[in-house]
Amino acid sequence: MARKYTKIEGNMLIAQSGGPTVVINQSLVGAVLEAKKHKEIKKIYGALHGIKGILDEDLIDLGRESAATLALVAQTPSSALGSVRKKPTYDDCLAIFDKLQKYDVRYFFYIGGNDSAETAHIINEAAKKNKYELHCFHIPKTVDNDLRENDHTPGFASAAKFVAQAFMGDDLDNAALPGVKINVVMGRHAGFLTAASALARTYEGAGPHLIYLPERPFSVDKFIADVQACVKQHGRCLVAVSEGIADSTGTPIAVAAASTKEVDSHGNVQLSGTGALGDYLVKVIKEKTDIKRVRADTFGYLQRSFPGLVSANDAKEAAAVGAAAVKCSTSADIDGSIAIRRVKGKKYQVKLERVPLKNVAKNTRCVPDAYIAKTGNDVTKAFIDYAAPIVGPLPKIGRFKGVKVRK
Amino acid sequence: MARKYTKIEGNMLIAQSGGPTVVINQSLVGAVLEAKKHKEIKKIYGALHGIKGILDEDLIDLGRESAATLALVAQTPSSALGSVRKKPTYDDCLAIFDKLQKYDVRYFFYIGGNDSAETAHIINEAAKKNKYELHCFHIPKTVDNDLRENDHTPGFASAAKFVAQAFMGDDLDNAALPGVKINVVMGRHAGFLTAASALARTYEGAGPHLIYLPERPFSVDKFIADVQACVKQHGRCLVAVSEGIADSTGTPIAVAAASTKEVDSHGNVQLSGTGALGDYLVKVIKEKTDIKRVRADTFGYLQRSFPGLVSANDAKEAAAVGAAAVKCSTSADIDGSIAIRRVKGKKYQVKLERVPLKNVAKNTRCVPDAYIAKTGNDVTKAFIDYAAPIVGPLPKIGRFKGVKVRK
Repeated sequence: MARKYTKIEGNMLIAQSGGPTVVINQSLVGAVLEAKKHKEIKKIYGALHGIKGILDEDLIDLGRESAATLALVAQTPSSALGSVRKKPTYDDCLAIFDKLQKYDVRYFFYIGGNDSAETAHIINEAAKKNKYELHCFHIPKTVDNDLRENDHTPGFASAAKFVAQAFMGDDLDNAALPGVKINVVMGRHAGFLTAASALARTYEGAGPHLIYLPERPFSVDKFIADVQACVKQHGRCLVAVSEGIADSTGTPIAVAAASTKEVDSHGNVQLSGTGALGDYLVKVIKEKTDIKRVRADTFGYLQRSFPGLVSANDAKEAAAVGAAAVKCSTSADIDGSIAIRRVKGKKYQVKLERVPLKNVAKNTRCVPDAYIAKTGNDVTKAFIDYAAPIVGPLPKIGRFKGVKVRK
Repeated sequence: MARKYTKIEGNMLIAQSGGPTVVINQSLVGAVLEAKKHKEIKKIYGALHGIKGILDEDLIDLGRESAATLALVAQTPSSALGSVRKKPTYDDCLAIFDKLQKYDVRYFFYIGGNDSAETAHIINEAAKKNKYELHCFHIPKTVDNDLRENDHTPGFASAAKFVAQAFMGDDLDNAALPGVKINVVMGRHAGFLTAASALARTYEGAGPHLIYLPERPFSVDKFIADVQACVKQHGRCLVAVSEGIADSTGTPIAVAAASTKEVDSHGNVQLSGTGALGDYLVKVIKEKTDIKRVRADTFGYLQRSFPGLVSANDAKEAAAVGAAAVKCSTSADIDGSIAIRRVKGKKYQVKLERVPLKNVAKNTRCVPDAYIAKTGNDVTKAFIDYAAPIVGPLPKIGRFKGVKVRK
């Protein structure tokens, strides 16, 4: 039972951070619509480009957006408030409190991944230290699906749907014009999105035939041998590889492949927005085997921002976590993050729970061992059982029976 | 009025060639369903992997596929019979006639682009020379939209829809995390698909801000200046560039960018399935300007094979050209290709016409001058008026009114 709590009146501020997703605006609009139901929340401010917008006092009044606009923005990909990749220093946090106090903000919501949860956590700790009553919530989103405490995260299912459908089509393309095709999928430390390529296997012999996740050390020699064996068996080979694959020393293969190295303020090397890893793996196969047709595509930003390609579960859950964070924030003087838990049972069902910010911040959740095949180049049936209901239905593929004409 | 013609009885053979599309099976199934209505067509054979399947006598009996399978295959991307990139020699053609005679084939249909039309043309000429009565038809398909005689070609509209939607999402992604983003789009000599990125501009200031087609010589210096001017104006820059852009000497920029050069049997350098061009353009901007965030994605094979992302017009027209070719082939002892013509008028409407094979074979149709802006880095309104009705409706994008909070 909740303890007695005197509601504090004040304004709300919400912002978005990190890489966009196709449902991140569902969470934003879910939070705004919920906030309108709570009298203690006065103004509803949106900061443009995350904490940068707070520091610059670049705010818009979300209370003045029409219901129709909110509904349309909800189903629009990418961060409608703009995003940022910035890890605040302690001084930044003090500056943020100045702004929050100036605008009488008592309800603060930061939508993002684990880096953004860390940002929210730092701000929250500074608020406590300064005895500023701030109801600070992180609202989860990440196509990488790598937030701890969560069964899965908003944004993952739609990106996974994109990856699965891309592989379904590319598998048929590869079958039509056989060769080796390597597709590089987003995922720095967690291979969930790459693993989702396995959902594309809708018939016997369908690709991807090989799946490499960053959770296992990547050996170029093993890769060459795997591809050769696959071509021998299937006459072709479709490969799914995470952008974040690294060798046994932990050095990303992309770093070896790239000519330049770019690092963001969270210390991450740039992996997306370049075809270098795919091209490197193609070069390796061309040099070390006699296979002629070898190609690579890097799915890139399309995975996280393609309009109209949304998992229905994902859209619904993203809106729900946004609303839940606001509801929770007004129930007591608490902070935290909202986590999606799976309810055990035959039918796919989830519940939302409040978890401490520090449990979600910074560290990533990787693909569990049970989901990775012992061979290190595939996923298990347990992964399919986990992912398929999250992603939901995929297009149906037709294939000929193919009765051979007698020669 | 058609001259009197005694119908020749025999079998039909159909095959697919060149790069797959998401609607190429609509044409295949459209042809098969039409063939079932014509008594003079006995067996309906499908050759696997184009003329390779004829030479190897690798045929399947399409008459034994159920209506349900045909319906499902029709809406499945990529070439259900498999494809090939092979330009037959004259000796190959003689060998093909042996096979066609052996299997009593009198109705031959080859679905593909201009290279495939050329193949059909060579076979047809050899048939005439050998006085073998062959009703030889080319059925158009190409995402490149570069077939002469056609207003547009089956496959283009769906690929253009993919490109437009990808740019709509990526524009919002780029707006959320500003910087320079370069997207490389398919198109060796014809820039129609790259031009289709302009359909993504649904609000004032929306990208793509710069569009480079292979129809205009590409200057790296001009490109750098264009990007700098755009960043100055918009604070960001989204660029669409054809994989086939070439310098004023006609040398593809991709050739300069790539470490290896791969050439197919039609003499084409490999452009797709590598991120080299995009990475090269990123390098140029990073080296010559002080812009920090510069990324490139190469859309690659997803453009032509993504399941579930189909233009309704495209699916309908692709089925219609397949059916029209069969209908036409049984009306007299004629050959040819089926072309899509636009009927002038307010409402989008097309008609199909038979055209001589040689009019479609080999040479490509490029984007007309009237569709390219004088600046050489954009398309005109005339192009939008041409392309928008072909592609059909795109998802709606929502944006906040964004009333600023007073500081």
